[in-house]
Amino acid sequence: MSAYDPPLRDLEFILHDMLAVQESPIPGFADLDRDFTAAILGEAGRIARDVLAPLAATGDREGCRLENGVVRTPEGFKAAYDLIAAGGWIGLDLDPDYGGQGMPHVLNTAIGEMHAGANMALNMYWGLSHGAYNAIHAHGSDEQKRTYLPKLVAGEWSGTMNLTEPHCGTDLGLLRTRAEPRDDGSYALTGQKIFISAGEHDLSENIIHLVLARIPGGPSGVKGISLFIVPKFLVKPDGGLGERNALSCGKLEEKMGIHGNATCVMNYDGATGFLVGAAHDGLRAMFTMMNEARLSVGVQGLAQAAAAYQAAADYARERLQGRAVTGPANPDGPADPLIVHPDIRRALMDQRAFVEGGRAFILWAASLIDASARSGDADAEGLVSLLTPVIKGFLTDQGFASAVQAQQVFGGHGYTEDWPMSRFVRDARITMIYEGANGIQALDLVGRKLAQDGGRHAMAFFALVKDFIKANEADATLKAEFLDPLKAASKDLQAAATFFVETGMKNPDAALAGSTDFLHLFGHVCLGLMWARMARAALAGDEDFHRAKLATGRYYMARLLPATALHLARIRSGADPVMALPAEAF
Amino acid sequence: MSAYDPPLRDLEFILHDMLAVQESPIPGFADLDRDFTAAILGEAGRIARDVLAPLAATGDREGCRLENGVVRTPEGFKAAYDLIAAGGWIGLDLDPDYGGQGMPHVLNTAIGEMHAGANMALNMYWGLSHGAYNAIHAHGSDEQKRTYLPKLVAGEWSGTMNLTEPHCGTDLGLLRTRAEPRDDGSYALTGQKIFISAGEHDLSENIIHLVLARIPGGPSGVKGISLFIVPKFLVKPDGGLGERNALSCGKLEEKMGIHGNATCVMNYDGATGFLVGAAHDGLRAMFTMMNEARLSVGVQGLAQAAAAYQAAADYARERLQGRAVTGPANPDGPADPLIVHPDIRRALMDQRAFVEGGRAFILWAASLIDASARSGDADAEGLVSLLTPVIKGFLTDQGFASAVQAQQVFGGHGYTEDWPMSRFVRDARITMIYEGANGIQALDLVGRKLAQDGGRHAMAFFALVKDFIKANEADATLKAEFLDPLKAASKDLQAAATFFVETGMKNPDAALAGSTDFLHLFGHVCLGLMWARMARAALAGDEDFHRAKLATGRYYMARLLPATALHLARIRSGADPVMALPAEAF
Repeated sequence: MSAYDPPLRDLEFILHDMLAVQESPIPGFADLDRDFTAAILGEAGRIARDVLAPLAATGDREGCRLENGVVRTPEGFKAAYDLIAAGGWIGLDLDPDYGGQGMPHVLNTAIGEMHAGANMALNMYWGLSHGAYNAIHAHGSDEQKRTYLPKLVAGEWSGTMNLTEPHCGTDLGLLRTRAEPRDDGSYALTGQKIFISAGEHDLSENIIHLVLARIPGGPSGVKGISLFIVPKFLVKPDGGLGERNALSCGKLEEKMGIHGNATCVMNYDGATGFLVGAAHDGLRAMFTMMNEARLSVGVQGLAQAAAAYQAAADYARERLQGRAVTGPANPDGPADPLIVHPDIRRALMDQRAFVEGGRAFILWAASLIDASARSGDADAEGLVSLLTPVIKGFLTDQGFASAVQAQQVFGGHGYTEDWPMSRFVRDARITMIYEGANGIQALDLVGRKLAQDGGRHAMAFFALVKDFIKANEADATLKAEFLDPLKAASKDLQAAATFFVETGMKNPDAALAGSTDFLHLFGHVCLGLMWARMARAALAGDEDFHRAKLATGRYYMARLLPATALHLARIRSGADPVMALPAEAF
Repeated sequence: MSAYDPPLRDLEFILHDMLAVQESPIPGFADLDRDFTAAILGEAGRIARDVLAPLAATGDREGCRLENGVVRTPEGFKAAYDLIAAGGWIGLDLDPDYGGQGMPHVLNTAIGEMHAGANMALNMYWGLSHGAYNAIHAHGSDEQKRTYLPKLVAGEWSGTMNLTEPHCGTDLGLLRTRAEPRDDGSYALTGQKIFISAGEHDLSENIIHLVLARIPGGPSGVKGISLFIVPKFLVKPDGGLGERNALSCGKLEEKMGIHGNATCVMNYDGATGFLVGAAHDGLRAMFTMMNEARLSVGVQGLAQAAAAYQAAADYARERLQGRAVTGPANPDGPADPLIVHPDIRRALMDQRAFVEGGRAFILWAASLIDASARSGDADAEGLVSLLTPVIKGFLTDQGFASAVQAQQVFGGHGYTEDWPMSRFVRDARITMIYEGANGIQALDLVGRKLAQDGGRHAMAFFALVKDFIKANEADATLKAEFLDPLKAASKDLQAAATFFVETGMKNPDAALAGSTDFLHLFGHVCLGLMWARMARAALAGDEDFHRAKLATGRYYMARLLPATALHLARIRSGADPVMALPAEAF
């Protein structure tokens, strides 16, 4: 089964009816009229359905192979990659100075959901180029930009991020890869990196590795880390490919999922690298890559849930099994479709309400990134900074759980590899881990972002919720069904933040013990806000689409949003239950 | 990594301190003194650790192969199976008249957790024999018992359950496999069965298939289903193996997990079968198999969580990454162990509190089965009937989620197949599906068991909780930390049951829309009761073990049990949010 049905109607509703991008003063948004976005999204959706999705099952089954240092991607991946590159999709939202199309990030994000939903392992290859592009664009020299960016944008070359080493993942202060300065200004890099997605493959002519390493004599810990460009093939002055650099893929990891993406152990044996930005300032540049990557990973988690939901809903409408408890719905058939059963619907509504709310959340955040990047809106930038760990952590935890629910609808068939459900679950699983495991996202949120700039961004978020409620509470339907539950949930979130402020000073463990609960509490409030905004937009329409939107929103408010109270109760139980056991008792 | 550390201390605590099996009047329990159970569990644990666990990773990697109709199990499985059979482990709790050892089911259940935790795919082969044994023992003729049971008990032959067909899983009324009567009293079975675990393999001389089929002319639907014994090799009058029966394995399923177990498509082409019990009465016999199987699947779900927790706790104590927020815990090392981080502890405590509570739950239920089977205790039988869907559904949903949390502790390493974490997750996933998907368990609980015998069993459960609270509330510590939260949770459960009674009459969808929430609410109250009982026992001890037990119990009461309020809120939202969308809108 390779069917993937691009969620065009829903994307367009969110962009135009909820976010009203066409009316935004953000530079470039004026181009986003309904016809334009429909054309772009339609074409991107067609590629997702007809080109990427049909390769997902075979890519998962075949995986990648390493033979004599060369990595072969699954059958068909190269042709699809070339089509994506030739169509200009890699640079859709990138700088026209380097060959990009300069469109808003919000549009690229909508496309990203479709491409990751259709084939996550394949989509990752150019997703990583995007991250490498951003780091060089933000921190590289003019020469580095001229040398590398146009090729990355065109897809002729691809990019990677090299952070993790065998003994250090989260704790980058421990990293050991050495970068010895040479007389010509370049560096010789020596060390081993692991878990390098797209570290070696046959899709592009060259691979531009961005590598974190230590220049000898620098400070220890994270303050002594520098960022380097380390190309697979060195680039000649005329831009052509020169000699092979001293780096190689030592091994492909055997993984639970994303088999079509090559996860490499990369060995650097005195490889030539070029410093990006200032020495010992690599962490800042890395965060440029990481922040974008974290949002993309949130999109991936959501995308697996969205694709899995589609498959589950189709199956539930078609598979005949049992009879409705209220009387046969399909009296002429041997049984009723699964979808008549309340518990199957409950599972589908859980998924649908999460997926549509999460889709709105991610597109709203993408529009804030545009506001920050294109209008210099510092408030938007602060808000995105606050929301980044929520997007990454909440959308991937819930996206995985949602894909598991979708798989469950298929019964035993969902456990076989004849259907795509196992793949959605196995692929979604990595999104909770990479680019900062979700526990790190929770730590970032509670330990850093919440109090950042004196708590200004958090207060701005609360004000935004409050203002929305105030501006719309004259609508009695909206108030009773959406705004009142949102207000209660937001109150839970504020109470949790207050608890952290009050207890965290005395005992930082008390805040951190509740960090994952806080992340989920925050995520629910965000989706509650999205549902309130979508409901307002849907109340202005009268198509079946709008009625379905309202019914789904009511489900979220009635059945999912009340989780905030449980998270608050857990948070308030503080550090003691969590920290009571001595380490040796585990 | 094949290390598996059998949880002997905890099993002994539950059996002797919480359940006090040695003081029970149930026939056979007097043998269960501490020395005896320690010897049996110790030996079973040694086999789990030294024989079964080392084969788990290779079994997962190799899987089973079908070549010319013959299924080859992974390297080492045959030797391990033979060792289990020779040791008498298959018949530990089976009838001595047929070669069993006649020990209590509760002891066999404790062993089952260790063997399923060490290697679920391998353990399933003899687990299925147990189910086939029970169906023949309960419903077969004396001749059938004499012919088949001793061989099943000895492991010379193994058993299977053949229910599912391509178009029908849950809805057995649709099944089509035909059984044509022959003149000699046997039947000719023709049809295809799918998802047959251990349907064909090289571990035993013969395979005894228990097959549901339809005798032509019988009633349609589930009332026309009969149960047949269909041996792979027909048995000669002297008990030796005769000719090969007309059945074969057509295909092995490619699955997400349990790769070491052969999941077969079985084709019956006029195969000779023998009716078990009365014609058209197969469903009753099938439920004998299913009920036992459902409890075993609950054990499997718990076992994966338990084994995954062990691995995660070990990793968290050893892996150095980051520093404790309250100051370095390992100042001489490059970093602190993961276990200093509050969110890692939160994840470990979630797992530990579930695993230990779930272990107590399953052993309590097993002791009720013994009370029913050995003492003819009808109340115990009714309670087990009520609790069976809770054990199956709650322990497998939560067991899977717990294994996912354990995998998360490993970061990126947990996603690779170099560690056992992916396997625990992939294996645990099937437990939510087979022997009745968990939605069916919830339907069974709410639609059948709750109101069974006028709600007598449910009322007995509530009385049991109430009596325990009343009998122990003089202990102020127990009351504040355990009994009061249990009382609140039990009140939520009763409120949910009352809601179903009040609304279910008018609208059965209202009860069924909340069925999965009710199952989880019920599961939490059961684990709350278990923790209160374990806390009472632990308060009588003063070793580190007892202090750890109390700390873990407090965690459950403070952080996990409060989920009952959320489940009640969801249940009370009724059918409308769940059923509002028309089927075509999905």
